[in-house]
Formats: sequence, structure tokens, C-alpha cells
Amino acid sequence: MSSTDVLPAELDSAIAFDDKGLVPAIAQQHDSGELLMMAWMNRAALAETLATGRVCYWSRSRGRLWRKGETSGQSQQLVELRIDCDGDTLLLKVDQTGVACHTGRRSCFYRALRNGRLEEVMPVERDPGSLYGDGG
Amino acid sequence: MSSTDVLPAELDSAIAFDDKGLVPAIAQQHDSGELLMMAWMNRAALAETLATGRVCYWSRSRGRLWRKGETSGQSQQLVELRIDCDGDTLLLKVDQTGVACHTGRRSCFYRALRNGRLEEVMPVERDPGSLYGDGG
Repeated sequence: MSSTDVLPAELDSAIAFDDKGLVPAIAQQHDSGELLMMAWMNRAALAETLATGRVCYWSRSRGRLWRKGETSGQSQQLVELRIDCDGDTLLLKVDQTGVACHTGRRSCFYRALRNGRLEEVMPVERDPGSLYGDGG
Repeated sequence: MSSTDVLPAELDSAIAFDDKGLVPAIAQQHDSGELLMMAWMNRAALAETLATGRVCYWSRSRGRLWRKGETSGQSQQLVELRIDCDGDTLLLKVDQTGVACHTGRRSCFYRALRNGRLEEVMPVERDPGSLYGDGG
């Protein structure tokens, strides 16, 4: 464990990281209660988040730290960290700048099952091309 | 896949079950926005949930379907199913009867990090012994 991975001792012992050293982290807008996204953290991502106040995840697809908003500008400020009863899920109460979803929607949970079909229930608020410069 | 595991086709193809056939499912009180818990579903659990309207998870520790509230009476009625942008997380908007947490608290996320320590920020509303009959 490097010095940048240090967590408060009580928190560290309370978190049940999985066999890949990861824990799911749910981001919720702190005031509205809106559920924004779920991603994963390792110890380093959580330590950085606590040190900076800006949410950093672990990107499983890219295999590296993912500072939310580093490309898109749509960052998340941590307001409060919660942990669940068995320590295997984190809840991040955050203040989301702009949109959380890479599709330009406020939340990643924009599809609802209605009458057996998936319906998009949130508008695109930002052009993904403007967020990432390449439409990707 | 048995007949009880059938999901609406569009939903089934949208969900990215992990290598254990599971997907994380976040339960949120539909009206207040309160985040209640996170658990896991396999295809059978989700199919049963959609068929009955009562939330059923897959218990990883017990290795079987877990009909939320079957012992405690603290069940969850599904109000709306959401799925995130990459299909690897579900959001269940539910109506929670009583408390979601086995500790007798409304939500499993009752511990907050404050000044480097974990603080309990929600009261015990139900005696766990009264929920499970044995205090467990």
C-alpha cells in the first residue's frame, strides 16, 4: 500500500473490497436524491477522493484511475461518504456538475422498463460530442 | 434457461450480467429518493421480481433466491425498473415496507464518514429480534 492509498483506519477495516480489490460506489445527488450512476473504486481511488474532495473511480475497462470529469468537465464533488451494513457497497453523496452520463443525460439510469420495452425517460442535456470533443 | 427465467427480450439483451450471471441492483424508495440498499440479481431473481411485483434478489452468501422480506416481512414492491447506460447496473424504484436493513434501520447506508470516523446517522427503528425472531 503506497502512502497515497491510506484510508482512515476505521473506514479501511469496514470496507469489504472484493477479490479484485474493488467496491461498488453509488453516486447520488446530495440534495435532490437523484441517483446518478454506479461505478467502482479501489483503495487508491477512494483515498484520492477523500484527499481531494473530487470523486475518483477505478475504471475497470481502462484499468486505471478515472477522475470523473477529467475529460468531460462533468465532475463530482464529494459531500458525504456512506457505507452499507456489510461494508461491501459505498454511497457517495455528491454535487454533480452538469451531467453524470457519457450520453449527455443527467443520470446513467435513463432507461425504464415500461410495458415490456425499454423507454428513455430522460432527455439528452449535453451533446456528447461537446463533452468529449469527438462524439465518443 | 427455464421458463421462469424469461425476461422481456429487449431487457434481457440490454443487461450485462457478470461472469457469475449476476448484476447489481440498487433499491431506492420511489417517492422520497432515499437509497435503501444494494444487492444482486440473477436472471431468475429479476424474472420473478417482474412476474410478481415483489423484489427478489440472489443471495450470494446463501446461494439461493432471496425474496426480500420473506422472513422479516419488510418487503419491497417494485414501482419501476431502470437500467444504466452500459447495462451493468439496475435501479429498482420500490415501495419499501418498514425497514430495508437487517439491523432494523430504514436504509443499509446508515454509517457516514465524519472527521475520519464512521458515525451512525440513522436510528434503529425496528428491533432486529422482532424481524427475525432470533435477533439474527
